[in-house]
Amino acid sequence: MKCIVQKFGGTSLGTIEKIHNAAQKVKLEVARGHKIAVVVSAMAGMTNRFIKSAESISNASDDSEYDVVVSAGEQISSGLMALALQKIGVPARSFLGWQLPILTDGSYKKARVKRVITKEIFRAFAKKKVAVIAGFQGIDDNNRITTLGRGGSDITAVVLASALKAERCDIFTDVKGIYTCDPRIVKSAQKLDKITYEEMVEMSSLGSKVLQSRSVEVAMKKKVRLHVLSSFSNEKGTMVVDESEILEKQAVSGIACNANESKITLVGISDKPGVAAKIFGPLSDANINVDMIVQNVSADGSLTDLTFTVDKSDLKKVVSVLSKRKTAINFKKLIPDSSVAKISIVGIGMRSYPGVAQNMFKTLAKNKINILVISTSEIKISVLIARNKAKLAQRSLHKAFRLQKND
Amino acid sequence: MKCIVQKFGGTSLGTIEKIHNAAQKVKLEVARGHKIAVVVSAMAGMTNRFIKSAESISNASDDSEYDVVVSAGEQISSGLMALALQKIGVPARSFLGWQLPILTDGSYKKARVKRVITKEIFRAFAKKKVAVIAGFQGIDDNNRITTLGRGGSDITAVVLASALKAERCDIFTDVKGIYTCDPRIVKSAQKLDKITYEEMVEMSSLGSKVLQSRSVEVAMKKKVRLHVLSSFSNEKGTMVVDESEILEKQAVSGIACNANESKITLVGISDKPGVAAKIFGPLSDANINVDMIVQNVSADGSLTDLTFTVDKSDLKKVVSVLSKRKTAINFKKLIPDSSVAKISIVGIGMRSYPGVAQNMFKTLAKNKINILVISTSEIKISVLIARNKAKLAQRSLHKAFRLQKND
Repeated sequence: MKCIVQKFGGTSLGTIEKIHNAAQKVKLEVARGHKIAVVVSAMAGMTNRFIKSAESISNASDDSEYDVVVSAGEQISSGLMALALQKIGVPARSFLGWQLPILTDGSYKKARVKRVITKEIFRAFAKKKVAVIAGFQGIDDNNRITTLGRGGSDITAVVLASALKAERCDIFTDVKGIYTCDPRIVKSAQKLDKITYEEMVEMSSLGSKVLQSRSVEVAMKKKVRLHVLSSFSNEKGTMVVDESEILEKQAVSGIACNANESKITLVGISDKPGVAAKIFGPLSDANINVDMIVQNVSADGSLTDLTFTVDKSDLKKVVSVLSKRKTAINFKKLIPDSSVAKISIVGIGMRSYPGVAQNMFKTLAKNKINILVISTSEIKISVLIARNKAKLAQRSLHKAFRLQKND
Repeated sequence: MKCIVQKFGGTSLGTIEKIHNAAQKVKLEVARGHKIAVVVSAMAGMTNRFIKSAESISNASDDSEYDVVVSAGEQISSGLMALALQKIGVPARSFLGWQLPILTDGSYKKARVKRVITKEIFRAFAKKKVAVIAGFQGIDDNNRITTLGRGGSDITAVVLASALKAERCDIFTDVKGIYTCDPRIVKSAQKLDKITYEEMVEMSSLGSKVLQSRSVEVAMKKKVRLHVLSSFSNEKGTMVVDESEILEKQAVSGIACNANESKITLVGISDKPGVAAKIFGPLSDANINVDMIVQNVSADGSLTDLTFTVDKSDLKKVVSVLSKRKTAINFKKLIPDSSVAKISIVGIGMRSYPGVAQNMFKTLAKNKINILVISTSEIKISVLIARNKAKLAQRSLHKAFRLQKND
C-alpha cells in the first residue's frame, strides 16, 4: 500500500465548494487503496486578513505572537477538510502542528522544520483514516507556535512526504503545472511535462509562485517526487524530478519574473575590505535574505556604490537596520527603489549551450530595456529591470528562446 | 501583590481599536502593581463565521473537528491582545488551551474543565508579564482541542481565577452591569450594584446573556468574586457576591427573558411509570439539556401529553432522537414550537415575601398574556409564553414589581 501526500493550496480551498472539490481528489486516491496524508493551506485570503490584523495592532513586533495569529487559518482548513472528507464517507481526522508534533527551530515567521513525528499519522492510517495536517505551522522547543514563512505549507507537505517515505507528493494549486512563462502574460506559454529540481528551485525563487523554493530544495535533497497539478482539472500536471529522468535538455526551460524584490543602493561607501561584512552581517542577523548584489568599481579606489535586492516585505527593516548603522558603515545615502522586477531565464541545458546570455542581453537591448543588475548561476541568468518593462521583457525573451507552443 | 483575572468578551474585542481599548484596561491594573491574567473571547462575529463554515461543510457531524475550527477565533484574539499590550509597554504573552494546558473532558462543543495547570502563568508573572489566555478552549485526554460551549470564555476566566486564587475576576462586556431587566426593552431598568450568585445563576440561565450561567455556578462554588462591567466606560459595574454581602433583599431583583428555547409536545403518550425515563434518557445521552417539563394529568389514566423545552439549537437533534424512538416511547405526535419565550422573575428575597407568584400571574392575566408552562425554584418563577408577548410581559412585570429607577 503506497502512501501519498496531497497538498492543497489556498486557492484550492478558497470556498466551501472548493474544499468539497479537494476532498473528492483525496477520495480518488483513497479508492485506489493508498494511505493519504493531506496537507492544507489556509483558505485563500484568510491568512492575509489575519496578517493585516496583527500588523495593524503593532507592526507585529513580537514575531511569536504574530505566528499565534496567522497560523489560525490552517487550523480552520484542517478541521473543515476533515469534515468534508467524512461527509463523503472518507474517515479522516485533523492534526495541528503541535499535535504531531512538527518540531521547528525558534525563528518565528520563517521557522525551519527540524523533525516530524509521524507516530500519530501512522496511528490514523492504521484506523483507515486520512490524516489531514495543518500546513505552515509547527512548534519550537518552548512549545510555542511557529510558522514556516510564505508558502510554508509546501514545506510541510515535502517534509511529511519524506518522513512518511511517500511515493509522491501532489501539490494541488490553481494552475495546471509549471509553464515556460506566466501564461497570463505570455499567451503562448506551454506546460512542461517534467522539470528538474534544480530548474524548479530557480523558477520558484525567481518568482514563479507555484511552489515555494525552499520546499523544492528539500524535495531535491530528500528525493521526494513532486507533482504540481490543478485541483480544478483532471489533467496530468508537471512532475518535478531528478535530472537523470529528463533526456532532452533545453537550453532554456522557462522564464520567470519576480516583481516582489526591492533594490537598495548605498551611495558613497568606502571601497575597503570589510565593508560588505559590516552591511550584510546585520542584515543576516535580522533574518533578511539578500538576493542580488553588485558593487561598482570605484574610479579612484576610495568611494563606491553598492546595490543589492531584498524581498519587498523586508525593505522597511533593511532601511531601519542600515540607517541605525550609518556611521559604523559610513555611507552617504541610502536609496530604496521598489519599482523594479527581476527577469530570469532558467535551463539545466544552459551549461552545455553557449551564447544563451548573449541572446538574452541582445533581446533586451533590441527592446530598449535597460539592465540594472545582473546575476547568474550555472542554470539561470537574472536581470533586474524597471518594473514597467517586465511584460515586454518576458514576451520578447519567450519568443527569442523559442519557448512558444507548436514551435 | 494581588492577582486579578480580566476577561474580555467578543464585543469588547470587536475591532482593532477595541482591542487597544481593552489593553488600556489591563494596563491600569498592571500600573496598580497587580499580576494580571487576561482571558479573551474571539472578536465579535468571528466564531459565528467559523461555525457557519463548519456547518455548511457537513452539519458539523464530527464535533471534535468542529472544535478545531471554532476555537481558532480565541487563538487569534490572544495573539492580538498580547501584541496590543506590548505596544503600550506592557510585557505580555499568549497561551492557548493546549499550552497551559487547560484539561477538559472529551465532550466536544460543551466540554467541562477538569483542571488548569497554572505553572506557565506563574512563570510569566515571574517575568513581569501579563498572561493572555485564549478563552473557550481546552484539550482532552487524547490531546485534541475541545471547546466549552457558548460563553465558554467566562468559564475559562472563572476556573482560572479560582486556580490562581485571584482577588477578583473582572468580566468586561458591552453593558455596564446587571440590570433589573434588559434596558433595550425596559427603558427604566436600573443597574444593580450587587447581586447574589444564586440570582445571577438564574438570571444567566434565564436569558440575561451577560454571563454564562455555568460560569456563575463555578464562581459560586469556588467563591470567585465576579465584577461585571463595561469595557467602554469607567463606571463601576455589578459585583456578583455571596448572599451574606447583601443586606436589604428585594423580593424580586430582576426580570429575564429567554427567547432561545423551543417547546416540544409529545401527544398521546401512555401515562405509566417509566415513560419519562424513555424520553429523557436518550436526550441526556445525546447531551441535550431539558429545561421546563410539564406532564398533563390524563383524565382516564391512559393517554396524556408531555411538554418540555430545550435550547433552540438542540431542537433538530431532539426531533431526530425522539422520532427514531417513536415506537419504543409510543407517542402519537411530536409538535415542535419555536415561537415561545420564557419570562422569569428572580429574587433571593422571594423566599421571605409571599404573594410574588400571585402578583406575577395577575399582572400577566391583566395584560391578556397566556401562560403555556410554569416552572419555579426557590428564588425564581418562570413562565413560557408566546414570543410576541415577551416585551409586553417584561414591561408590565418590571412595573408591577416596582423595579424602575427612582421608585
